Amino acid sequence: MQLGLVGLGKMGGNMRERLRRAGHEVVGYDRNPEVSDVASLREMVEKLAAPRAVWIMVPAGDPTRGTVEELGELLAEGDIVIDGGNSRFTDDEANAAHLAPKGVGYVDAGVSGGVWGLQNGYALMVGGAEADVARLMPIFEALKPEGEYGFVHAGKVGAGHYAKMVHNGIEYGLMHAYAEGYELLEASEHVTNVPEVFKSWKEGTVVRSWLLDLLVNALDEDPQLAGIKGYAADSGEGRWTVEEAIRLGVPLHVITASLFARFASRQDDSPAMKAVAALRNQFGGHAVKTN
Amino acid sequence: MQLGLVGLGKMGGNMRERLRRAGHEVVGYDRNPEVSDVASLREMVEKLAAPRAVWIMVPAGDPTRGTVEELGELLAEGDIVIDGGNSRFTDDEANAAHLAPKGVGYVDAGVSGGVWGLQNGYALMVGGAEADVARLMPIFEALKPEGEYGFVHAGKVGAGHYAKMVHNGIEYGLMHAYAEGYELLEASEHVTNVPEVFKSWKEGTVVRSWLLDLLVNALDEDPQLAGIKGYAADSGEGRWTVEEAIRLGVPLHVITASLFARFASRQDDSPAMKAVAALRNQFGGHAVKTN
Amino acid sequence: MQLGLVGLGKMGGNMRERLRRAGHEVVGYDRNPEVSDVASLREMVEKLAAPRAVWIMVPAGDPTRGTVEELGELLAEGDIVIDGGNSRFTDDEANAAHLAPKGVGYVDAGVSGGVWGLQNGYALMVGGAEADVARLMPIFEALKPEGEYGFVHAGKVGAGHYAKMVHNGIEYGLMHAYAEGYELLEASEHVTNVPEVFKSWKEGTVVRSWLLDLLVNALDEDPQLAGIKGYAADSGEGRWTVEEAIRLGVPLHVITASLFARFASRQDDSPAMKAVAALRNQFGGHAVKTN
Amino acid sequence: MQLGLVGLGKMGGNMRERLRRAGHEVVGYDRNPEVSDVASLREMVEKLAAPRAVWIMVPAGDPTRGTVEELGELLAEGDIVIDGGNSRFTDDEANAAHLAPKGVGYVDAGVSGGVWGLQNGYALMVGGAEADVARLMPIFEALKPEGEYGFVHAGKVGAGHYAKMVHNGIEYGLMHAYAEGYELLEASEHVTNVPEVFKSWKEGTVVRSWLLDLLVNALDEDPQLAGIKGYAADSGEGRWTVEEAIRLGVPLHVITASLFARFASRQDDSPAMKAVAALRNQFGGHAVKTN
Repeated sequence: MQLGLVGLGKMGGNMRERLRRAGHEVVGYDRNPEVSDVASLREMVEKLAAPRAVWIMVPAGDPTRGTVEELGELLAEGDIVIDGGNSRFTDDEANAAHLAPKGVGYVDAGVSGGVWGLQNGYALMVGGAEADVARLMPIFEALKPEGEYGFVHAGKVGAGHYAKMVHNGIEYGLMHAYAEGYELLEASEHVTNVPEVFKSWKEGTVVRSWLLDLLVNALDEDPQLAGIKGYAADSGEGRWTVEEAIRLGVPLHVITASLFARFASRQDDSPAMKAVAALRNQFGGHAVKTN
Repeated sequence: MQLGLVGLGKMGGNMRERLRRAGHEVVGYDRNPEVSDVASLREMVEKLAAPRAVWIMVPAGDPTRGTVEELGELLAEGDIVIDGGNSRFTDDEANAAHLAPKGVGYVDAGVSGGVWGLQNGYALMVGGAEADVARLMPIFEALKPEGEYGFVHAGKVGAGHYAKMVHNGIEYGLMHAYAEGYELLEASEHVTNVPEVFKSWKEGTVVRSWLLDLLVNALDEDPQLAGIKGYAADSGEGRWTVEEAIRLGVPLHVITASLFARFASRQDDSPAMKAVAALRNQFGGHAVKTN
Repeated sequence: MQLGLVGLGKMGGNMRERLRRAGHEVVGYDRNPEVSDVASLREMVEKLAAPRAVWIMVPAGDPTRGTVEELGELLAEGDIVIDGGNSRFTDDEANAAHLAPKGVGYVDAGVSGGVWGLQNGYALMVGGAEADVARLMPIFEALKPEGEYGFVHAGKVGAGHYAKMVHNGIEYGLMHAYAEGYELLEASEHVTNVPEVFKSWKEGTVVRSWLLDLLVNALDEDPQLAGIKGYAADSGEGRWTVEEAIRLGVPLHVITASLFARFASRQDDSPAMKAVAALRNQFGGHAVKTN
Repeated sequence: MQLGLVGLGKMGGNMRERLRRAGHEVVGYDRNPEVSDVASLREMVEKLAAPRAVWIMVPAGDPTRGTVEELGELLAEGDIVIDGGNSRFTDDEANAAHLAPKGVGYVDAGVSGGVWGLQNGYALMVGGAEADVARLMPIFEALKPEGEYGFVHAGKVGAGHYAKMVHNGIEYGLMHAYAEGYELLEASEHVTNVPEVFKSWKEGTVVRSWLLDLLVNALDEDPQLAGIKGYAADSGEGRWTVEEAIRLGVPLHVITASLFARFASRQDDSPAMKAVAALRNQFGGHAVKTN
C-alpha cells in the first residue's frame, strides 16, 4: 500500500527501505533534500491517493507536534496519521484530539529495533482505534520481524507509546543488572577471564538474552571496555516510566536505580557526597578531600 | 569416561541421564536406595577405576562438606572431586585445602539449567587447575549445551561458583526489571492487554530473552497471575552477591533492591512501616491503621 | 496587624489562635459556620482595611486555586494573598500570574509544625517579592518559633513551597532510616530491649533528633508497635520531590526508596513479586504459593 | 573508681580526661610514650587494685584482639575487660569466650560522640552480664552525657556493639537524606539561598536534628561546599549493618543506598556505567564518550 513517511533520519530512512523491499510505495519527506523524495509535506500529501496514511518519524515533542499540526491542514477526512517517534504517551491524546475534528484518525506506534531493525524487523507496539489499526496492518506486517511476535495492538490511542515506554524502562533495569554483574566480576580476584564468562552465558543459562549477546560483542571489541567512559545519556522513556510509577503508586526500585545511575554517571562530582563528607568532618573530625 | 555422581535428586538424576545418553559410564550414589546405583559411597568408589572423578551434587553447606570429607577417606592420589552444587565460593577453598594433602584434586562447577537442563544442556562455569579441568572435559562436553557457548573455565578453585553466584545475582535483577514493568503495565489504564504486550516483545525488541519467554509462558497459563502469591524465597546466591559487593566496595543498587524485594515479599507486615506510621501519627496526627 | 485567614481546620484554627495570642487581628473564614468569624469571603474582605493581606490555608489543588480566583474578584491593588497550604510549587506561578494583572501580590509559604505548631511555632519557608515579604513580617514573626531560626525567605514566588517540598522529601528519608534501624534491631536476637536503645540515643549520639524523640514517644506508648499496621499514606510532597529529581537529573536513591516503601505498604499483594514467583516456577520448578 | 585505659588516641585521650574530671583514677597505657601513663600493659595492670577494670580503646580487629589476649595473660579472676572500640559485634563473643575460662568478665561498649564527647559526654550502648555492667556504672556515669539519656544496657555480650552498629547504619541513612535534599536544592533554580533554608530548619521543623545543625555549621564555613570533594570513606559499621540485614532477611533499601553512594564516591569511573554505555552503543548506535 501507499505510505507517506515524514522524517528520513537513521530510523526513518531504514524503515523506508524495509517497506520498499516488502513492495510498498513510500513517499518520504525530510527537510534534508538529499534524502527526501519530495520537496514539501504538501507535495508528499498530493502524491498519495485518499484515504491516505502518513507515518511521522521525527523527534518527540515540538517537532512531532508541529508535523501533526501541518498535516492537520493538509489531510482530509478518512486519512490516518501514525506517530512512530519516541513520543510520551500523553502527547498522543493531544495529537488525536487535534486531528479528530477533521475526521483524521491517529495511531501511535512504539518502535523498537534500533540499528538492527532494517535487517531483523522492528518490534511495534501500537495504540488506536480497531479500524485504523486494521487498515494499517500491511505496513505493520512489513516493518515487524518475521514470525508470530513483534507486533501488538496494545489498546487505544497512547497505549503503543505507553507499552514502548515500559519496554524501555525494563531495558534500563536489564542493562544495569548485567552492568552490576560485570563490575563485580571485574572487581573480584577470583574470576580471571571476565569476557569469557559472559560469552559462556550465551547458552544454557537463565540470563541469556539479546542484551547479553550485545555485551559479549562489546567485550569482544574491547575486553576491558578501556576505551569507553562510564557515561550514559537518557532519552526520556526511563524518566517517564518512573513518573508513571509515581503517579500510579507503584514501587519501582530497580528501574529507578538504573535511571539514577545514569544521572550520577554524568556528574563530575556529587553535591550529595560533598554534604556527606562535610558532615563526617563536622562530627567525627574525618578529613575531607579537597578540590 | 567413568564418573561417580553423588546426589541423584532432580538435578543429579537428570545429569546422570544426560551423561549416559552421551555414552559415559555413571556410577550414581544417593541415600535413597530407589534411585541409587550402589549401596554406599565406598561401593561407588570401588566401582571406579583410578584415576577417579567424583561429582558431588548435594545441598550446599554441611551435606557437601561432609561428602568431601568422606570422599577424602575413600579416594587416592590422582583422583578428582567436583562440586557441582550451589556452594558458596568460599567453601571451595576449604574443600580444596582439605583434599590437597591427599593428592586429590578439586574442581568447582557452577551449574545453570534447572528443569530444562536434561533437554537443553547445563551451562557450566568451572574453577580449578588447568590439568584437572582438561581431564574432565569429556564430562563437561556432555553436560553443556550444544554449540560453542555454555562452558567457561573461569579461573582457579572457587571461580566457577563465583561466576555462578554473579550469574544468579544478575538473574535477580533481570527478573525484577521484568516484574516491575509487569506491575506498571497492570496498574495502568492505558494498556488493556498486558500478556499480549509481553508476547509481542519476544521478537525484535531490546528486552527479548529467555526469561521473557518464560514470563510469556506463565502469562499464557494464568494471564493475571491470579493463582500465584507475590512471595519468593531466595537460595543464597543473591545474598552472597551482595555480600561480595560490600566486601569489594561495589555499588549494587539493582541486584540488592531485587533481593530486598524478596525479603519484603515474605513479610506479613513491615516493622519499618509500622515505625513510619507511628512517626507520622506523632508529628502530624495522621491516623494509623490498627491491626 | 490585620490578617484575613481562609480555612480554619486543624492547622488554620491553630494558626489563628497563635496569631491572636501575639496581638494580631485575625478575621477567619471557613465554610463551617461553627468555626468561622464571618459568613462569607466577601464579608471577610470587607472587614479588612486596605492594603489587605489574606492567608489561604485550604487543601492544595482545586480548593486553593478556587480560593485564589474568588479572592482575585474581591481584592484590590496593593493587597497580598499568601498561600500557606501544601501546594505544589508549580501552582504558585499560576496563582501569582492570575493575581498580578489586578495588582494583587502573591506570597507562598511552606509551613511545618503539624500538631505541635500552636505551642512551638511554625517553621516558615516563604517565596515572593522582597517588598511583599517585608510587609508580612509581623505575621511571620508571630507564627514562627521563638529564637533566630524557623523562618526563611527562600527566593521568588514558588521558592517557599519548593523548600517545604524538599523538607518533606528529606523527612521521608529520615523517617525511613530510623524505621529500618528499628526493624533490624527488632529482628536481631542480640538486642533485647529495643525501646530502651532508642531512648538512650536521645543524648550524645549522632542520630539524635526531633524525629527520634517522637519515635521514643511512640515506643513508650506501644513498645512493639503492636497496635499499628505498617501502612502509610503520602501527601504529595514526596512524589513531587522525586519528580523534581527526575526533571533535574539528580540521583535521589534514599528519598525515592522511602517513597516506594510507602507505596508497597499499601499493597495487599505485590504484582511484581507475583511475576518473580511465576518466573522462578518456570525455570527452576520452584513451587509458588497460591492464593 | 580505678580504671585501666588502653589506647590514648583522639578518643581514648579525651575519655581519660573526662573520667579524671569526674574524679576517677585512670591509668592509661598507649604505645606512644608521650601520652602514656605507664611503660607497659603489665605496669598498668600492676598499678590497679583487684578486682580490676580495663577499658580497651584501640582499633577494631587485630589490635583489639591482641590486646584482649595480652590482658588475658595479665588479669585475674574477678577482673573485667571492656572493649569500647568500633568492634564488630561478632568479635565480642570470641573475646568473651577467650577470657571466660580465666574468670575474667567481658563487657562491650559502643561509644558515640566523636570530637564532641569530651565536652558533651559519650553516648554508651553496652552489652554484658548484669553484674559486670552494674560494677562499671560509675565509669559509665562519668562518660555519658548529663541527663537521663545516653546510656543503655542493650543485652548480653555483643549487644552494645550491635546497637552501635545499627546506630551508625541509621546515621548513614540520615546523612544521605539531608545530602540528597541539599543536592536537589542546589540543582534547582527556585531556591536562591540554600544555606539559609537549611539554617531556618533548625527550629520548628520535622527535620531538625543534631546532624542538621552540623550541616548548617559546614555551610556557614563554606556555603557551596566548594572546598570539599564528594568523597567519603566508610568505617565498617555501615557494611556490617547491611550484612546483618542480609542475614536476617530485612529489606534495608535506604541504609544500603547510602552505603553504595559512598562506594561510588570513591570511584574515578564506574565500570557498570561503562557496560551500560557499551550496550547503548551496540543496540542503538549511541555514541560513547571515550577516555
